Amino acid sequence: MKPLDPGDARFAQIPTPALVLDAAALDANIARMAAFAATRGIQLRPHMKSHKSVAIAQRQCAAGAVGIACATLAEAEDLSAADIRNILLTSPPAGEEKCVRFVALSRRGSIATVVDDADQVNMLRAIAGNVALELAVDIDVGQERTGVVGPREAVALARLIASLPNTRFAGIQGYAGHAQHVVGFDERQRVARGAAQRLRDVVSALSEAGLKPGFVSGSGTGTSDIDMREGPYTEIQAGSYLLMDAEYRTVRGADDSALPFEQSLYVLATVVSNRRCGEITVDAGTKALAVNGPVPDVLIGVPKRARYRFWGDEHGIIALPPGAATLPTGRRILIAATHCDPTVNLHSAYHVIMDDGSLNVWPIGGRYRPLRAAGS
Amino acid sequence: MKPLDPGDARFAQIPTPALVLDAAALDANIARMAAFAATRGIQLRPHMKSHKSVAIAQRQCAAGAVGIACATLAEAEDLSAADIRNILLTSPPAGEEKCVRFVALSRRGSIATVVDDADQVNMLRAIAGNVALELAVDIDVGQERTGVVGPREAVALARLIASLPNTRFAGIQGYAGHAQHVVGFDERQRVARGAAQRLRDVVSALSEAGLKPGFVSGSGTGTSDIDMREGPYTEIQAGSYLLMDAEYRTVRGADDSALPFEQSLYVLATVVSNRRCGEITVDAGTKALAVNGPVPDVLIGVPKRARYRFWGDEHGIIALPPGAATLPTGRRILIAATHCDPTVNLHSAYHVIMDDGSLNVWPIGGRYRPLRAAGS
Repeated sequence: MKPLDPGDARFAQIPTPALVLDAAALDANIARMAAFAATRGIQLRPHMKSHKSVAIAQRQCAAGAVGIACATLAEAEDLSAADIRNILLTSPPAGEEKCVRFVALSRRGSIATVVDDADQVNMLRAIAGNVALELAVDIDVGQERTGVVGPREAVALARLIASLPNTRFAGIQGYAGHAQHVVGFDERQRVARGAAQRLRDVVSALSEAGLKPGFVSGSGTGTSDIDMREGPYTEIQAGSYLLMDAEYRTVRGADDSALPFEQSLYVLATVVSNRRCGEITVDAGTKALAVNGPVPDVLIGVPKRARYRFWGDEHGIIALPPGAATLPTGRRILIAATHCDPTVNLHSAYHVIMDDGSLNVWPIGGRYRPLRAAGS
Repeated sequence: MKPLDPGDARFAQIPTPALVLDAAALDANIARMAAFAATRGIQLRPHMKSHKSVAIAQRQCAAGAVGIACATLAEAEDLSAADIRNILLTSPPAGEEKCVRFVALSRRGSIATVVDDADQVNMLRAIAGNVALELAVDIDVGQERTGVVGPREAVALARLIASLPNTRFAGIQGYAGHAQHVVGFDERQRVARGAAQRLRDVVSALSEAGLKPGFVSGSGTGTSDIDMREGPYTEIQAGSYLLMDAEYRTVRGADDSALPFEQSLYVLATVVSNRRCGEITVDAGTKALAVNGPVPDVLIGVPKRARYRFWGDEHGIIALPPGAATLPTGRRILIAATHCDPTVNLHSAYHVIMDDGSLNVWPIGGRYRPLRAAGS
């Protein structure tokens, strides 16, 4: 695929720093994961937390996704407002404020949430009145973040859910976040298999109790190939595959190959200073590029072997290789995202280079909602 | 000052994670820095990049600030739209897109920008037509990010500015970002003095050339006490003092005391899972709290000696001390910001506990602007 050119006239008027998305690479990634899943007979419910874009979610659904997973109520609210079907909230809502918001979404229908606690279930049910709820049990498969920790607890919670009026026990989730970024294939497979076994044990216990889950959801970009082959997942939640980043570019496949997805996400930056020898300063720092990943290592529009480093909220420094000509101020460059999810979260829109060469702007939503200001 | 209570009924309906601002602490910080400056006969032009809030900028101006400094054109546009006077853009604008935006702001007046490059000056002038421009020379005082590197270059650029029609050489800026977080006072003073000396050399050279700068702007929260006493600054750009964070709480004063400012910025979070022994999971992770600072170390609403760690985009884990009771899901806690500027940047509004006990919502603006979508 032809790499983007930051000198392209379409980029000239974009206020920098800015997110740029290569639609050809994006669509290739969407199609590739959809084809993998179809071949394996697994459903895709890709995760919105990576892209936070209704436009991208619609593209994923058009390519065969059965629904969309999301991490926050704000993301779920955006999806529901756009009439996306089969939404799954993958973090348990807790406390009255979150339960009220989930019930409001349930009134519109076609949404489920995971829960891991009887208090959450009882509060949701008390708020819901006669609104039907779809609840799934979150299983801790070794990530140690949310989820019940074993089959016995899972059965007890599923039984509580199934016993309540207007409340359906929809399925289970086990997300092995701790496995996704393990670089070597064998070790990643070992961790993924451990998580899968914990899920299988839960499925068995639930089935024995007459509570066979309607879906078994989980998996991410790093383990989806393993999980789709080996189960017990009925659906895959992978999200980052469609954007890719420096971290996932280091993750190796079975034959030591890279993951079969292409970089589609970049930050467009402008050279704002070149007064020092061998260095230029660009307008993309820690407020434009997430820092919790490797240092950005793909730079387009600068000499080969140039290296980026963060230098504050608004700036990065690019060290030029010895002998290279400096770049004039105003020159634009592209920086591949270092960690896609938190990088997207820093921006309000994607600037999308479409297959036909046109430029689109897709809003990024799903931000944390403030309390509505009085009078607004 | 009485610490905030996350169990307070005013917090119950706020969608978490959420930024919370203690107006009493904020106003005390604003007043304290204003008093320091007044005593020293130095002007304050506090930096907006920390807070990104027009409401806070107006509060600073009401307390005596002569204007507001800002890092990005988006921040400058918000300030200008609110008729804030004496705006200083502290990063050089480069390239046509940024120059066009700065000229549009100059048409409304009462704004200056720093520049460090003749290309920038010539492009601004070419775009401006008969719009008057106020340009200041940015000096690299050791931060090695932007700015001309010595007196000779500074004089040449000031002379170019002064020679152009409708263009005023307004002053100089030297920001010693590398000095602000040096923990020990003596070493911080040494670095600050080095930066100040470089600025003094530039002031001398400019004065000899008949180009005495109208202002000498710089300094930050970490060095403002030194810089106000020793010069050569005519105005101080400090910003973080009004929010404070874990990083600035480690910075020591002359007698090994803490800086004389109070924590005013917190993230309100909800306990969303408590299924594991000795740990609870809250809904504030790397998308709610900046990671480029110390780990959050002030937690209100959890047992003493509880410790926070990041566990992904949306979650953090709090390890409880041995023997402590766990917290129920839905319980709320407050986490002091670890690094204020990038934490603010992750949110859309402050939830402000006012002195009279009421709750206000102040929008956070100044986000990077996307290209306007076709038809919007």
